Amino acid sequence: MKAIEKFDMLHVTDRVLVAVSGGKDSLAVWDLLTELGYQADGLYVGLGIGEYSDTSGAHARRFADEHGLKLIEVSLRDEYGYDVPTAAAATNRVPCSACGISKRHLFDKAAIDGGYNVLVTGHNLDDEAAVLLGNTLRWDIEYLARQLPVLPARDGFPKKVKPLVRLTEREMAAWCIVRGIDYLVDECPIAAGNKHLAYKAVLNSVEHESPGSKAAFYLNFLENMSPLLAGMSVAGKDSLHSCATCGAPTTGENCAFCSIVGKAAALDPVPVECVLGKSVGKSLSKRARR
Amino acid sequence: MKAIEKFDMLHVTDRVLVAVSGGKDSLAVWDLLTELGYQADGLYVGLGIGEYSDTSGAHARRFADEHGLKLIEVSLRDEYGYDVPTAAAATNRVPCSACGISKRHLFDKAAIDGGYNVLVTGHNLDDEAAVLLGNTLRWDIEYLARQLPVLPARDGFPKKVKPLVRLTEREMAAWCIVRGIDYLVDECPIAAGNKHLAYKAVLNSVEHESPGSKAAFYLNFLENMSPLLAGMSVAGKDSLHSCATCGAPTTGENCAFCSIVGKAAALDPVPVECVLGKSVGKSLSKRARR
Repeated sequence: MKAIEKFDMLHVTDRVLVAVSGGKDSLAVWDLLTELGYQADGLYVGLGIGEYSDTSGAHARRFADEHGLKLIEVSLRDEYGYDVPTAAAATNRVPCSACGISKRHLFDKAAIDGGYNVLVTGHNLDDEAAVLLGNTLRWDIEYLARQLPVLPARDGFPKKVKPLVRLTEREMAAWCIVRGIDYLVDECPIAAGNKHLAYKAVLNSVEHESPGSKAAFYLNFLENMSPLLAGMSVAGKDSLHSCATCGAPTTGENCAFCSIVGKAAALDPVPVECVLGKSVGKSLSKRARR
Repeated sequence: MKAIEKFDMLHVTDRVLVAVSGGKDSLAVWDLLTELGYQADGLYVGLGIGEYSDTSGAHARRFADEHGLKLIEVSLRDEYGYDVPTAAAATNRVPCSACGISKRHLFDKAAIDGGYNVLVTGHNLDDEAAVLLGNTLRWDIEYLARQLPVLPARDGFPKKVKPLVRLTEREMAAWCIVRGIDYLVDECPIAAGNKHLAYKAVLNSVEHESPGSKAAFYLNFLENMSPLLAGMSVAGKDSLHSCATCGAPTTGENCAFCSIVGKAAALDPVPVECVLGKSVGKSLSKRARR
């Protein structure tokens, strides 16, 4: 794959952990890496988003079984006493924000605990372009500086790579169809109406008017802008220390994940229906945040 | 006005030339500057866009007459032997591009010839945000670096300022209504469907979802990004010399304006109807170009 070489993402000696949701992108990237000869295990995080999570887990497990691959599973509810709908209700964060914080923490932890030196996610061109549009509309220099297809390991964080950044959603769906990968087609019900999806729609309308715009937007950013922003991220400069509760690297006393656990684990489970529509127009995606 | 002070645009001793189209923005900025006590003459360039130009010229003249202001007039057809529809047909440029090159050249020339030290245009927040979106979608560093509300004078170019960059289209229309300014409401018929208008529509949809986004996009760019891009423009570094034909500063042998004159002035006039629809999806606005 061109992206893996161009951005120096992976080496055959790497121990790779792929974050797997059961959707097309994560299953496709796991499939691709395995085909290319990389040693890649999967990680599935059960987010407790009702039937959606049940189905997504089933897709991830079936893919792993059929391909003889190892899938590590973590359940927010079983292991941390909460789920995404309850976290959304317990905190002032919109659901997609609480979900993102939970996933990032558990991805990092699983990679470090399991001795993996690279964490792979299935973010595709549409994802990255939408996040870039959000960061650009605010000209958030900190986020723009960190929006890279490869983030090197630092402190307690694994190296993070996104091999699909040059490929569109439609290309990933096509790959799954060609390869006979049975993925979860449905979008997360809580995400409906969030800004990330709104930005995708905006870019699709621009792409419709001017084919090639979406790829140019993201790839020209990497080519023309990222070098100018190198070193502008304060993340690398802030002194990190260990979270007082879990030991994960953080700039505060407790990490954002433990803050959510502290608020949400004490509550009775909140049904997913109670947080539907809470993402509309408020949940600017924080996917660019490391 | 906050923009004039914040960006150090004008001083009361300046001799100001306002580019006036007969639309709401240019008449409003002329009105505002006069009210604020600046000595500001107007410049109207007759572009020869059929009935649209006839009407726009009448609005500009009426405003000048009613306010006892001096309006300098230049006619592309009478003085240079062509008009925008003919230029569009004669060159490979889309109409909005040929129009922009013609206007910029004549604005600069009128300012320099008339001894004005500042050229004012009525670009508003919507205009600037749309141009910024276009430049950002391509990450054109050269254009981004030059997209400023004030460009200092250099070589044969006057200082150029845009006092309305903090104000929206709707605010300018409201100003005209409150002040009883009779402006041309119609958009240029040739511009219909161009990318500049498409970018405005995109930003309006984002603004509808997240009120304040449009102003944040443009003003955060100036605040966070422009300082990082300072000095990235090669325009200030290129050695300019005099156009072999007209003497205007240019990087080539002949300036872009004289190139259009050379091709278009020899042709029979092309009716505006023949170039309608030629801007659709092709005429990425070059307004950011100096």
